[in-house]
Formats: sequence, C-alpha cells, structure tokens
Amino acid sequence: MTDSETAQGTYVEPGEFRRDTNYITTRITADGRDGYPVEPGRYRLVAARACPWANRTLIARRLLGLESVISLGLCGPTHDKLSWTFDLDPGGVDPVLGIPRLRDAYLARFPDYPRGITVPAIVDVPTGQVVTNDYAQITLDFSLEWTEYHRDGAPQLYPEALRAEIDEVNARVFREVNNGVYRCGFAGAQDAYDAAYDRLFTALDWLSDRLTGQRYLVGDTITEADIRLFTTLARFDPVYHGHFKCNRSKLDEMPVLWAYARDLFQTPGFGDTIDFPQIKDHYYKVHTDINPTRIVPKGPNLAGWLTPHGRESLGGRPFGDGTPPPPPVPAEVVPEDHGPR
Amino acid sequence: MTDSETAQGTYVEPGEFRRDTNYITTRITADGRDGYPVEPGRYRLVAARACPWANRTLIARRLLGLESVISLGLCGPTHDKLSWTFDLDPGGVDPVLGIPRLRDAYLARFPDYPRGITVPAIVDVPTGQVVTNDYAQITLDFSLEWTEYHRDGAPQLYPEALRAEIDEVNARVFREVNNGVYRCGFAGAQDAYDAAYDRLFTALDWLSDRLTGQRYLVGDTITEADIRLFTTLARFDPVYHGHFKCNRSKLDEMPVLWAYARDLFQTPGFGDTIDFPQIKDHYYKVHTDINPTRIVPKGPNLAGWLTPHGRESLGGRPFGDGTPPPPPVPAEVVPEDHGPR
Repeated sequence: MTDSETAQGTYVEPGEFRRDTNYITTRITADGRDGYPVEPGRYRLVAARACPWANRTLIARRLLGLESVISLGLCGPTHDKLSWTFDLDPGGVDPVLGIPRLRDAYLARFPDYPRGITVPAIVDVPTGQVVTNDYAQITLDFSLEWTEYHRDGAPQLYPEALRAEIDEVNARVFREVNNGVYRCGFAGAQDAYDAAYDRLFTALDWLSDRLTGQRYLVGDTITEADIRLFTTLARFDPVYHGHFKCNRSKLDEMPVLWAYARDLFQTPGFGDTIDFPQIKDHYYKVHTDINPTRIVPKGPNLAGWLTPHGRESLGGRPFGDGTPPPPPVPAEVVPEDHGPR
Repeated sequence: MTDSETAQGTYVEPGEFRRDTNYITTRITADGRDGYPVEPGRYRLVAARACPWANRTLIARRLLGLESVISLGLCGPTHDKLSWTFDLDPGGVDPVLGIPRLRDAYLARFPDYPRGITVPAIVDVPTGQVVTNDYAQITLDFSLEWTEYHRDGAPQLYPEALRAEIDEVNARVFREVNNGVYRCGFAGAQDAYDAAYDRLFTALDWLSDRLTGQRYLVGDTITEADIRLFTTLARFDPVYHGHFKCNRSKLDEMPVLWAYARDLFQTPGFGDTIDFPQIKDHYYKVHTDINPTRIVPKGPNLAGWLTPHGRESLGGRPFGDGTPPPPPVPAEVVPEDHGPR
C-alpha cells in the first residue's frame, strides 16, 4: 500500500481517518476462474519492504516457498505523488516488467484507474497488467490456491479447522491495530486522535492478555493471524510510536507483545523480510503532512529484536508438521546493516 | 522563552539551528547599579510552566523562598505569533500588571523591541516595564542578590567554592543538552539532525557516567547545575523523544539519568513546579512547522516519576545545611491531574 494511505483515505466527521478499502479483486486461482490461473513463472509480486501490507506477502511467500514460482519486484521506500517506483533497480526500471513506476502496470490494465497505486500488487508478466492489489486476499490465495507449488514442509497458514477463529482475530486486528495505528497518525482532530489512541491500546491490551498463555494467536502454530499482527508490531517502535503518536508505551515496554514479536522476528521467514531503514524512510519522508521536514529519526536502538524471548516455554510448534524455510535467496537478502541495530 | 525559539533562531548552513542569545541584560541587584534595586513586592516574575528556561526560575524561587517578595504571573502554554499571553487569568489579563500579553511589558520599556517575546521575564510593577529576560542571569541573581530575603534554611545553589565547576558543567549542559534537544528538533536538514542527535546522546552518556557515583552534578548538594539539567530531563519523554526526534532511547531507558531525574522530581521545589499537560500543549501546539496538525499525544505514561529512585544510597545532602522548602502556596499549586500519571 502507499501513502495512498493518505490519498486513499477520506476524512469524515469528526476527523477520523477512513481507509479506502476498494481494491482490484481479481484473483489468481487454481481453476483460473477470473482468467488468471495459477502458473509458475507467470506472475510477479510487486512489493516494498517499507509497507506493512506488502510485508505480509513477503512473509507468506517465504514461509510457503513460492519464491521460485512467483518472482519479486521491489519498489524503494519512498515514492512520488503518483506511484511507487522501481528506484532501487538499475536505471530505475524493473528488470522483468521493464517499467519505472508501478502505476504503469495499473494503467496497462485500467487506463483510467482512479485510486491510489498500492503495494502489494501482482502483475501478469506477459501482458504487463496488474492482476490484483487486494492484499488481504493475496496471502490467503498463496496458502489455498498455490498449494501445488508450495515447498516441501510448507506450514498450514490458514488451516480449515481454525479458519473461523483466524478470520475473527484478523478482523479485530485489522480494524483496531493494523489500521488503528493509521487512525492515530492521520487523525484530523484531537478528539479523533484521542479516541483512536484508546482503541489501539485497548486492542493491544487484549492481544497481550491473549498471548500471555499461548505462543501464537490462533492454535499452537504460526498462522495468517500472526503474519498480520507481526508486520504492524515490527513498525511500532521505529515509526508508529513517534510518527503516529502511538505513545502510551513502546512495544518493548509491553512485555508479552514484545516477546511475541521477537519470537516471530527470530523465526525464519519473518525477521529476514524486515528492512528497518526502508521502513523509517517511507513513513517519515512520504507523509509530509505530518512530518514536513522529512527528517528521519536516528533512533530507536533496535538491537533488542535479537535478544532471547523465552516464548518456547509456552510450547507450540511454529511450523506444525512442517519445517522452517531455508534462508532467503541471495537476491532477496536484506542487507545486514538494515537489520536490527 | 518561546517558539520564538523558532522565531529567534536563525538557520545557518547546513541546516543547524542556532539560538539567538541576545537578551535584555539589565539586572536587579542589591546595590541597584542598573537602576533596579532588590526590593520586596516591586517585581513580578512572568513565567510559563511549559517553558524549560522559565521553569528554572520557578524552581529557584521555590527553593530560595522568594515567593513572598517576588510575585508570579503565569502565561498559558500556547501563545500567538507575537507574544505569550495571560490567557489563564480571568478576562485574559494579568491581575497585577493589567495586561493581556507579555509583549505589552516589553513594549512599555522598548517601544520598538525587535526580538522574540520570551519567558521568563521580570517586570517592574510600578512602571509596567520589563526589566530583564536574561534567564541565565535571573536565577543566579535570585541566589546572590536577593540573599537578604531568602527564607530560613534556603540552600546555597551557587556556592562560591563550586562556582567554577558549576559554570563549566552548565556551559556544556546548555550547549549540548538544554539547547541540544532544540538542535535536533529544529534541524533543517538530515545531516544537521544526525549530527545534533549524536552530540546530544554523547552528552547524555557523559552525564550518565558522571552521575553514576555521585548524587548531584556538582558537590554533594543540589545546585544551579541540577536545576538546569532537570528542566530538560522533565520534558524528555513527554516531548523531546517524539516531537524533537531525540529517540535513541527514552529517559526512562537511561537508568542513571532516570533515577537522578526522579530523585530531583521528588525533592520539594522541583516536581511541584512541573505541569505535564502544559508542557505537551506548548510544544505540540506552538511548533506548527514540525507538528502541523497540532495534535497532542496522549502518552507516554508518566506515573514512573513517582517510583523509588534509590539515589539516597549515594549519600549527598540535598539542601546542605539548609532545609526543604514548604509546600507551594495555594495559588501556585499545580493541579494534581497535571502531575505524573
């Protein structure tokens, strides 16, 4: 997604931020019913390490071992008013799609596309057209539609028996936490901010209680629910605490959530997708409406992410009957100096 | 002082904030050599609880027991472009000076006064003219010129034997810490900010080392040096950490400085001058160049200020041969819900 977070949002009385939740809902499915069948090598996932919504897809793709069948294009952390760009690539052009801006893929399919240009997006490589940017569905389809191409030992991220509970948790986490931090940061009035802050920390307290006695959010293995909460928690201290004024406390002052987040961070497929400098650059440089100087804080110290978390004592089997993913492929390794320091 | 902090500052290459340090240097002295002799009831200290520079004078006046000889006018936490105002007073007018804006007292003496209207200021009540706004001298003169009117048991805040060392510490604390946080917050370029951040935390590390084995900054009693450091530390977590991006860590993550600050806070004359909501309102509402929404964060939780600090074990005699001041006079009590919560 993007600061199209801003562009997409509309402000309603009395100053509450509302997210535009209209996405391109075309799906890539095993049966190809929307015209886009699952097919190795055909699609390119376009993400940005900065973006929490895109981050979900990076984690799910890693955990399920889809790297060899769905290629990855990465946009830089900042973007212009119109689009995320491939400014990290040589010549500023995605080497597979041959375009400088993600917007080009949106316009290739919808010449009058009216909404924000968001990541994650999946592009059909042969036509250069965006297929979908419906981030909430993308990871579920990675789990349920791409099963033929999962790696050996891929975990069940959305197991049928737990689906209702995962959906319920996800709905509250989305509303109160994933989007809740934005509701704080983009509030247009003090009252709206105050209410958003209370809602956010009420939800974090609920999550903290829930995770006190169980290692993962639903069941005893990693699921889609953990992925969705993790990408917000990873950004909490470097960005949301200061930039979005989510400052009742830092994540590292909430012992249960902090240990839970570190546990996931240290699990292959989670922390190895996190690029802290890109995360900070994105928020602090793109949101000029709340940070007009575009100056990016040097802090906080993030070395704590690698400290022991002690959550093993709660039991749980991170990958269930499966196995951890191997290390990232060389082209997708986050530079060491972009990790926790 | 004021965000005339901003207005006063000039930006020099490459984006470093510089404070205008030109003040009205007229002094109120025992011998009256500048035309303003020490005289009970003649002068009114105008301060704002929000402002760290004014906060020094509130503490020194309390510790020395000058409340009955120098009256106090308090401006509200926010102000317009021209001046701090008496918006907290009935009718928006200072009950003694009869003026709505502090600027009126400046203009009464200098009709073309060209610089920022700052607190603290001392006004000569009979003429309504400002005498001085030279905050660094005001507290020293409270100690050295008003001795005849000190309360019984008033401490020596600027004892002759320690003066050179106090001056040396004060110079570094002013340059690197008191002003250092502003250098971070008002940096006009990333490089300038990065350098300011490193300078600030280098100085805080030095102070932390210095205070590891000794209870106070200079000697074994409270001095002027402690007052000057305290007013910055009190604002660190509620304001400087987020608003000024001084975020390597919060104060409460720096164990020695945090215990030192709590020790002072819990000492009569220090914490009882602190009004956290006014502090937050001032910075977040006045600095629209770095917080355009003017939204004030609800956090952080400040209840920790009242927790045991354990610094008694280092020895020291807070008031030396003197005694703590009595509680504030009723008219000057900070409302309980403006304290640490």
